[in-house]
Amino acid sequence: MLNTNGLHVAVVGATGAVGKQMLDMLSESALPIKELTLLASKRSAGKTILFKETEITIKEALPEAFEGIDIALFSAGGSISKQLAPEAVKRGAIVIDNTSAYRMDDGVPLVVPEVNENELFNHQGIIANPNCSTIQMVAALEPIRKSYGLKRVIVSTYQAVSGAGLSALEEMETQSRDVLDGKNTQPNILPVKGDDKHYQIAFNAIPQIDKFQENDFTFEEMKMINETKKIMGDSGLKVTATCVRLPIATSHAESVYIEVDNEGDASAPDIKRLLSEAPGVVLQDDPKQQVYPMPVDAVGKKEVFVGRIRKDPDYAGGYHMWIVSDNLLKGAAWNSVQIAESLVKLGIIKA
Amino acid sequence: MLNTNGLHVAVVGATGAVGKQMLDMLSESALPIKELTLLASKRSAGKTILFKETEITIKEALPEAFEGIDIALFSAGGSISKQLAPEAVKRGAIVIDNTSAYRMDDGVPLVVPEVNENELFNHQGIIANPNCSTIQMVAALEPIRKSYGLKRVIVSTYQAVSGAGLSALEEMETQSRDVLDGKNTQPNILPVKGDDKHYQIAFNAIPQIDKFQENDFTFEEMKMINETKKIMGDSGLKVTATCVRLPIATSHAESVYIEVDNEGDASAPDIKRLLSEAPGVVLQDDPKQQVYPMPVDAVGKKEVFVGRIRKDPDYAGGYHMWIVSDNLLKGAAWNSVQIAESLVKLGIIKA
Repeated sequence: MLNTNGLHVAVVGATGAVGKQMLDMLSESALPIKELTLLASKRSAGKTILFKETEITIKEALPEAFEGIDIALFSAGGSISKQLAPEAVKRGAIVIDNTSAYRMDDGVPLVVPEVNENELFNHQGIIANPNCSTIQMVAALEPIRKSYGLKRVIVSTYQAVSGAGLSALEEMETQSRDVLDGKNTQPNILPVKGDDKHYQIAFNAIPQIDKFQENDFTFEEMKMINETKKIMGDSGLKVTATCVRLPIATSHAESVYIEVDNEGDASAPDIKRLLSEAPGVVLQDDPKQQVYPMPVDAVGKKEVFVGRIRKDPDYAGGYHMWIVSDNLLKGAAWNSVQIAESLVKLGIIKA
Repeated sequence: MLNTNGLHVAVVGATGAVGKQMLDMLSESALPIKELTLLASKRSAGKTILFKETEITIKEALPEAFEGIDIALFSAGGSISKQLAPEAVKRGAIVIDNTSAYRMDDGVPLVVPEVNENELFNHQGIIANPNCSTIQMVAALEPIRKSYGLKRVIVSTYQAVSGAGLSALEEMETQSRDVLDGKNTQPNILPVKGDDKHYQIAFNAIPQIDKFQENDFTFEEMKMINETKKIMGDSGLKVTATCVRLPIATSHAESVYIEVDNEGDASAPDIKRLLSEAPGVVLQDDPKQQVYPMPVDAVGKKEVFVGRIRKDPDYAGGYHMWIVSDNLLKGAAWNSVQIAESLVKLGIIKA
């Protein structure tokens, strides 16, 4: 049952890969929800979705739909956010936006609650949820940064197909069967739906996520670079990234190499201890027992899993780690709902 | 037809994943082959294999089988090499060993012909073929090292299942169908056949290749670290690695980050030019046209493919690249046959 007191929450893009997870996370959340409005494209309007034993009819996402909304969770693509988030704010809502539309804008807090929750006090109506691959990395690196300082981050990602949406997931499944059956297959979606060329993802690795930028990095790579600096509040941190799409349904993995500032204080056992105590992080690191995080084990879990922590034998202050998390949950829906919970907890919004 | 003059070549492990490719590479090679002897376990002895229109009967790999052999290509596992390579050498053969049994031994050249062919002059009977993931990396890095010097290499691998043998490949295929059909699946082979625990590879990423060592790196990672230094003849080169097994049938990919010595002389266009002229290397790097190497495109090809070359925006002298090659060919069979060709070309063995 929904609360009689509490917040009127809207989800924009309720029928998408992340939108569906947002409803799950809202239903598990302690957020006091008085009313839930589900918004989507005209095509989906009129369909119903069950939320906590209540059937909710999807409405078309129009400016007027935000009247009376307290918190609006957006996950319907950047152009929808560009168009409708200001309309929601104008009508008094706080927007938590899961697209890249506003992330790097001044005056828009980019928040991972375990890292920089207090940035929420500076919001001007729109709060940005970071990119999935950034969120899990900064959640694991922040405890290390706080203790030893961070000089450099060099990351190579192993990213799941669900990050490209439900149609990409379907493409991977159909393609995998075709390849196993020795049939020809015609890719239509990955790596980037709006790009010219499409490549096979089944039993392959595609070193392109999102479009290429002028500097030959992809937009996904630049998101990791720029968002990490903004979230950690350190423009001098050196971050660089290679992002790769792989035939994995859900959960991103990351091979992360870091250099700490105070190398004399750090050690692999110390980093393991820090991470074992960190909020939202689960240490899975026991090589003798073959214990390390893997994508299939992280699916459906809210935490960030870290393992394979070890010192670079050749370089003082250099450490490796392997970070895995469900890209649709902590990487998207759960972090967005966590931000909503933080807004209530910090008294920024009154339930 | 086989030559009437020429070398008597033996292949040990002729029925394995790499052994089969060795026969293909020998049939395409310019090596003057007078006679080809195929050796395998007692179980396979008596079976026949067609080589260049000649049916060859497999014999059991026993010490006496090496009488009269000029070159013996070993790819039947480390323990077979330990046992039989000295027997072959005792009988006058030069052994080219594709296992890790002798790679780091003094007096055993570890050779990638494009990089350190002249080391072959120092052989004492056994020549080692490096690890698959090492070969493709050093082939791409050597032209850069020669021009600018190399300080550091930080690599994260995306490795194919065929590197773990034919049974691992079958496991991946069966498992992939089971997962797609929603059936339970019981892993028995990967990540390491002889290790305690086995994990699902289908639609997953396993951050373990070969067994864990005392320093929490895997043996595969230590191979990349130690072999790279030996092949490049630079014990001061800083190398570190994370090796990951992925649901890809054939061809390893690598996200390689390097720091060059003479950063003022280097640039991304310069590195691209060097690689476009390097022997055995193919540059595939045109982001605007979405051109970059991918595992499925490299299968069956002898070259090492390199793309995604770009400068670290935050660190002078830091560059990224993405290196892909068929792990069974340049990573194993082809490099072994190339070594045999070099032995003839350099006059170390007379055909």
